Amino acid sequence: MAATAALRPDETRDSAAPAFPPPHVTARPIDRAAWIAAYRQVRSETERRAAPLSPEDQQVQSMADASPTKWHRAHVTWFFEQFLLREHLPGYAIFDARLHYLFNSYYVAAGPRQPRIQRGMITRPTMAEVAAYRAHIDRAVEALLGQASERALEAVLPILEIGLYHEQQHQELLLTDILHAFAQNPLNPAYDPDWRFPKPAAQAGQVTLDRAIAWIGHAGEGFSFDNESPRHETLIPAGRIDRALVTNRQWLAFMEDGGYAKPELWLSDGWYAGPAEGWEAPGYWRRDGEGWATITLGGERPVDLDAPVTHISYYEADAYARWAGRFLPTEFEWEVAARDGGLPDAFGLVWQWTRSAYVPYPGYRPLPGALGEYNGKFMANQFVLRGSSVATPEGHARLPYRNFFYPHQRWQFTGLRLADAA
Amino acid sequence: MAATAALRPDETRDSAAPAFPPPHVTARPIDRAAWIAAYRQVRSETERRAAPLSPEDQQVQSMADASPTKWHRAHVTWFFEQFLLREHLPGYAIFDARLHYLFNSYYVAAGPRQPRIQRGMITRPTMAEVAAYRAHIDRAVEALLGQASERALEAVLPILEIGLYHEQQHQELLLTDILHAFAQNPLNPAYDPDWRFPKPAAQAGQVTLDRAIAWIGHAGEGFSFDNESPRHETLIPAGRIDRALVTNRQWLAFMEDGGYAKPELWLSDGWYAGPAEGWEAPGYWRRDGEGWATITLGGERPVDLDAPVTHISYYEADAYARWAGRFLPTEFEWEVAARDGGLPDAFGLVWQWTRSAYVPYPGYRPLPGALGEYNGKFMANQFVLRGSSVATPEGHARLPYRNFFYPHQRWQFTGLRLADAA
Amino acid sequence: MAATAALRPDETRDSAAPAFPPPHVTARPIDRAAWIAAYRQVRSETERRAAPLSPEDQQVQSMADASPTKWHRAHVTWFFEQFLLREHLPGYAIFDARLHYLFNSYYVAAGPRQPRIQRGMITRPTMAEVAAYRAHIDRAVEALLGQASERALEAVLPILEIGLYHEQQHQELLLTDILHAFAQNPLNPAYDPDWRFPKPAAQAGQVTLDRAIAWIGHAGEGFSFDNESPRHETLIPAGRIDRALVTNRQWLAFMEDGGYAKPELWLSDGWYAGPAEGWEAPGYWRRDGEGWATITLGGERPVDLDAPVTHISYYEADAYARWAGRFLPTEFEWEVAARDGGLPDAFGLVWQWTRSAYVPYPGYRPLPGALGEYNGKFMANQFVLRGSSVATPEGHARLPYRNFFYPHQRWQFTGLRLADAA
Amino acid sequence: MAATAALRPDETRDSAAPAFPPPHVTARPIDRAAWIAAYRQVRSETERRAAPLSPEDQQVQSMADASPTKWHRAHVTWFFEQFLLREHLPGYAIFDARLHYLFNSYYVAAGPRQPRIQRGMITRPTMAEVAAYRAHIDRAVEALLGQASERALEAVLPILEIGLYHEQQHQELLLTDILHAFAQNPLNPAYDPDWRFPKPAAQAGQVTLDRAIAWIGHAGEGFSFDNESPRHETLIPAGRIDRALVTNRQWLAFMEDGGYAKPELWLSDGWYAGPAEGWEAPGYWRRDGEGWATITLGGERPVDLDAPVTHISYYEADAYARWAGRFLPTEFEWEVAARDGGLPDAFGLVWQWTRSAYVPYPGYRPLPGALGEYNGKFMANQFVLRGSSVATPEGHARLPYRNFFYPHQRWQFTGLRLADAA
Repeated sequence: MAATAALRPDETRDSAAPAFPPPHVTARPIDRAAWIAAYRQVRSETERRAAPLSPEDQQVQSMADASPTKWHRAHVTWFFEQFLLREHLPGYAIFDARLHYLFNSYYVAAGPRQPRIQRGMITRPTMAEVAAYRAHIDRAVEALLGQASERALEAVLPILEIGLYHEQQHQELLLTDILHAFAQNPLNPAYDPDWRFPKPAAQAGQVTLDRAIAWIGHAGEGFSFDNESPRHETLIPAGRIDRALVTNRQWLAFMEDGGYAKPELWLSDGWYAGPAEGWEAPGYWRRDGEGWATITLGGERPVDLDAPVTHISYYEADAYARWAGRFLPTEFEWEVAARDGGLPDAFGLVWQWTRSAYVPYPGYRPLPGALGEYNGKFMANQFVLRGSSVATPEGHARLPYRNFFYPHQRWQFTGLRLADAA
Repeated sequence: MAATAALRPDETRDSAAPAFPPPHVTARPIDRAAWIAAYRQVRSETERRAAPLSPEDQQVQSMADASPTKWHRAHVTWFFEQFLLREHLPGYAIFDARLHYLFNSYYVAAGPRQPRIQRGMITRPTMAEVAAYRAHIDRAVEALLGQASERALEAVLPILEIGLYHEQQHQELLLTDILHAFAQNPLNPAYDPDWRFPKPAAQAGQVTLDRAIAWIGHAGEGFSFDNESPRHETLIPAGRIDRALVTNRQWLAFMEDGGYAKPELWLSDGWYAGPAEGWEAPGYWRRDGEGWATITLGGERPVDLDAPVTHISYYEADAYARWAGRFLPTEFEWEVAARDGGLPDAFGLVWQWTRSAYVPYPGYRPLPGALGEYNGKFMANQFVLRGSSVATPEGHARLPYRNFFYPHQRWQFTGLRLADAA
Repeated sequence: MAATAALRPDETRDSAAPAFPPPHVTARPIDRAAWIAAYRQVRSETERRAAPLSPEDQQVQSMADASPTKWHRAHVTWFFEQFLLREHLPGYAIFDARLHYLFNSYYVAAGPRQPRIQRGMITRPTMAEVAAYRAHIDRAVEALLGQASERALEAVLPILEIGLYHEQQHQELLLTDILHAFAQNPLNPAYDPDWRFPKPAAQAGQVTLDRAIAWIGHAGEGFSFDNESPRHETLIPAGRIDRALVTNRQWLAFMEDGGYAKPELWLSDGWYAGPAEGWEAPGYWRRDGEGWATITLGGERPVDLDAPVTHISYYEADAYARWAGRFLPTEFEWEVAARDGGLPDAFGLVWQWTRSAYVPYPGYRPLPGALGEYNGKFMANQFVLRGSSVATPEGHARLPYRNFFYPHQRWQFTGLRLADAA
Repeated sequence: MAATAALRPDETRDSAAPAFPPPHVTARPIDRAAWIAAYRQVRSETERRAAPLSPEDQQVQSMADASPTKWHRAHVTWFFEQFLLREHLPGYAIFDARLHYLFNSYYVAAGPRQPRIQRGMITRPTMAEVAAYRAHIDRAVEALLGQASERALEAVLPILEIGLYHEQQHQELLLTDILHAFAQNPLNPAYDPDWRFPKPAAQAGQVTLDRAIAWIGHAGEGFSFDNESPRHETLIPAGRIDRALVTNRQWLAFMEDGGYAKPELWLSDGWYAGPAEGWEAPGYWRRDGEGWATITLGGERPVDLDAPVTHISYYEADAYARWAGRFLPTEFEWEVAARDGGLPDAFGLVWQWTRSAYVPYPGYRPLPGALGEYNGKFMANQFVLRGSSVATPEGHARLPYRNFFYPHQRWQFTGLRLADAA
């Protein structure tokens, strides 16, 4: 139930402990029941998110960056079959060998695959057949967790764990992708008519950063992605970061001051990708009489002035900061400021663009094998976002997490907070 | 049942008289029951063709030239609502005004519409909701036919009639479009596992044409499209036309002689649209060991050497004729030769490319109003095909019928027959 | 001097007989001096047309459809080297073998060639080096004509003759291509500041055509291109063709009536190629205060209301005819009407779009060998224009001449005249 | 003469002191003669570089990233007119107001301009007219320097200085752009048949970096670009940087090991921009029998195994480093290592890709006004290169200089050196 909170933050939380995240992979003795519970929770959360969608909704791919719901449901399942079951479940029989080509995403080492732009062409297997595929894999994974020796589980659990975090990432994409698809439909369908954006907690004020050498990146025993390592030192200059996210009200001031019409505020690539192509407001905004409406998971709604601005690209975030005479924080400044609750809205509302390009940490090496393609091969031309969003599943977000998107993309729940130099 | 014959030509024909085509619009007294029967037959044939397809199948748009099954089902329904019910059924209430934008195809005079390339984005209304739309319109049309005065029907029947022929055209597209979609899927889905191509009837031999002035175009009282008029005279030179269609066996000889690798056989535009882009065989053909297989409505099948070649573009038909040292007939030669059963396989197998560009007949004027956009505005850059295909519904084909496609297109059931000058 | 007339029709004609066209290839005895004179005239006319252009002007390629002046000068020279000298001048030494790749245009049978779109990249050979190439070929051709046996000349003269007509075609393109290039330059350079459009001769009135079988195509002994054959009969319906070309004054009435803003006037392909892409006037027209100016070979000029409209596409011509409730003539109607001076402005002003698609005459076979690529491989997707233009060299135009361009193209001197059905 | 050294490093240097760089702008009293000498040297170096090029060569634009030589010569001249003379020379008369549109590059604040991709269309002004423009500006600038009051010069000299560095940047582009143009020509023209790549000085070995906080960026009184500021501290981790550049010999080992065929070595964007598009070697390399040749400023030459590899993209440099199990240095590591001659081939051979994305230094603010567009608006999607190249003019290179290009670009003289973590 906890995961629901990400979508319906106004609901009462279940008092029971959440099943996710699972125990750490190194915890001994291995708590099989806890791992199965975590697995079930993640898997059922995917189904819960897909449930409101018709077979047609689950089929559509509205742009190259987005994938069909059905594809998400199958791909995360293939991930367990490919990286976990084939290697580690003795005697495992592939569900349908033809699905390998269809549901491999970008793992070149795992073989050829359906071109990304063609994912929406695959009407078969149907939604029901994908459900059968999921059930088949679920049975096999649970059998593996129940029966494998403790020694075998030592190799199994790290893959299971990344598979769960991986599926959670697709849970977020499932929502952002269907939102994009629905936004192409003049009927303005709602994913959930009751959906509402959670309210920010933060008040005015800033976190002050002193000049210091800080440790950055993953530490300790919990899960992390490879791009959060190696943990390393960096020099943080003195500065200040806003506690609050930029709101729609503030963004409207930027718009009303001609922010989308002043090339001097924009990066050159951003100007040509954005205003020169007709951008005059954040993604999904539409003129509505004298004001603005926006397409949300709840359908078309008037823009909520007190909500954080979202569906903005890096280019827009950067232009806004320049207009305001301020800066986006670096990802390092963000990480230091967010420690110990320094940024109350760091998580659960909008991902926050930083001015850090997505490059490897010093000494970074990707994982060996196909999983080495997970993060490392995207380390060019993208920018780091920190925090998490309203669409991020419960239990997924962590302080050193590095999300990354191209600077023109804005179909995610992306927003910003501002900073100042000392 | 008769309509089934187009798909399963091997089945026994129903002995009962087919309901389609309906009585001529000028027949008096008006036989309301016959018109309702014709309407029901056409409408149910659409449903029969869609029935094997899942909601996912009916959603997909695999290229700009193709449309989703669901869209076809809704668009032909909109056509009756837009051109028949709005004007002629007193007190008719629009089913859902928002559908007008979604399901207008290309009638500029009928207002703005969903961009063609975006038809596959429309997941709502769902398949079930489109079924409800169809049922609503069916009730209204039948009510109109049952209740309108004889005088009112004089205006109604011509629109009803074109609406029925229009829906039949989309029945053919429904099959060719889903075939294209299935051909994108590595799983090779079958529309109908029992589907088979009908056997040609023709033997060797030629129809001899004498130099003569011939009347061309629609004559008499039956239905015709505007592009078949005005009936006019043209001079037919002496010549001969093959009774038989070109077969896959013959096409393979062309391929084995390097037909796809010899630019001297090709029109310049054809070379760059075809072989220069990788064409080496007809559409949907794939190498299969030493031989060739092809994607059919029955799934992947070995190429049937005795079947007429199909899924070829005009460019390929033209190159083949040049390779054979012969010609494609003009549409006029075809029409004269096909009279009185001169060409036994004129109908029901493959549309036959002619070397006639699709231009207006002398003195042609389109219909007034939005329906004037039906045929006339496409009279450039296309070539005329004559006859009909395995996918054409029963009762639809007629001798002077002019079909037209761009010379690079080959997702239709298109083939050829050859001719000689005297 | 005669050739000058095409550019400066107001000048006094030279009383001497023009050297072009040469004697017919079958005339005996062979008049070597006359052939050399014809050769010199054509070659010098090319140079005369290039003379006002700087090395920079001669280098530029402003679009894929256009070629640099320098390329035209070299390509027509290569044509003589490739098809005449290599075969027929014993011991001929290729000037520079590397030029073959650069200056072959589209003769696939003659080997690979510089991609068309890359012709403007070739800065070397320089303009001066191309002049040296021309001089080398001129010496060789004149030597061949002076020394070859009469028997040898029987094979030489047909190739020489087509080479001369070929070079004349490029003389026309040289002007239309540089006009396009200059139109890209905000400085509005003039090719010839004194250039003026010739005045039409025709008055109001029509040529009446009676229903008749007419012979169409090349007849007799003079030169013709292969696409003008076979001469054949066609049925001409009764009708009437205007003596006068459509003028800019008339075109402005079409514009002022919203001709560019009414999709119902346009072919679908034409609407999307034209008005939907911003067309609101003929090519090279620009708003000039309340009126319109146009880019001419004389620089920017106010639109001359009495001049024939030019730089219009087929799509525009077709839309204009529909707006006027009239028709474009077929190429056959045009040819019959233009006989015996029936259309005073048939030649020397603007090419006239017909509603005939460019397809082969019945029984057409291209020339054997590489020269078979000259016309035949372009017989799809284009429309026939008849007559000739202000840029056509003196002596080049003939009654059965079939020019052809794609329906969206308008950088040639293209215009129209209208017709009526009987 | 000194500037020649960059192109002919084997020539004897002129013993006289070079005129460039000029005195610092704050030096007092102002040495007008020295500034005039610096101006003349820079301006004449541009002309020296353009001198071997014909008018045709100077006209061509071979891709959107490159500009015609003539445009470079005019644009750098416009820069002085626009930013120096218009503001600071009383009574200055614009040479030709129409040139402003043509020769503004990307200064949005300076008004609209010729689209970049259309620079090659501008055949007028001719090369000779551009020479006249240059002479006019030279007279005016020298007049200004000779006559302005000392107080006026305080505002003039900073603009003059940036104008000189700006012209030097275009001197480098002039060579790389004409090399790209010549590489499109199958005749393989040579810019300078005697051109040779300078020999590297470095031997094996590494510079060791200790973990330390280092100052990065411009310091002191000399010229710098705004993107080198603010000078700031950063933490340098312990590591080592190779003294030597990667050579063609080493690059061939990468190629022979399948470096261009192993997706696991490549960034995802790099794979699709490079090998997937046919890259199999550095830019301008061509198979030559069993070996490789390359297009140089001296024409086509066998690849020199001892020369530094060049014309490689960031993607290739990154893949090479991964293949070697090593790293590209950050720009900060490079700057620290290169101090005090630590990297003998830092300058004058090839620009060296770093793994630092081109982002602003902490607290960076662009210059006010149009010159603020010089560097700042490009701070996304590019990577930093350090050092200088064989094409960089004498006196231009400086330690903290930050060059930047997109990661797919390789028409510059770009290479790499490798580094190791501690």
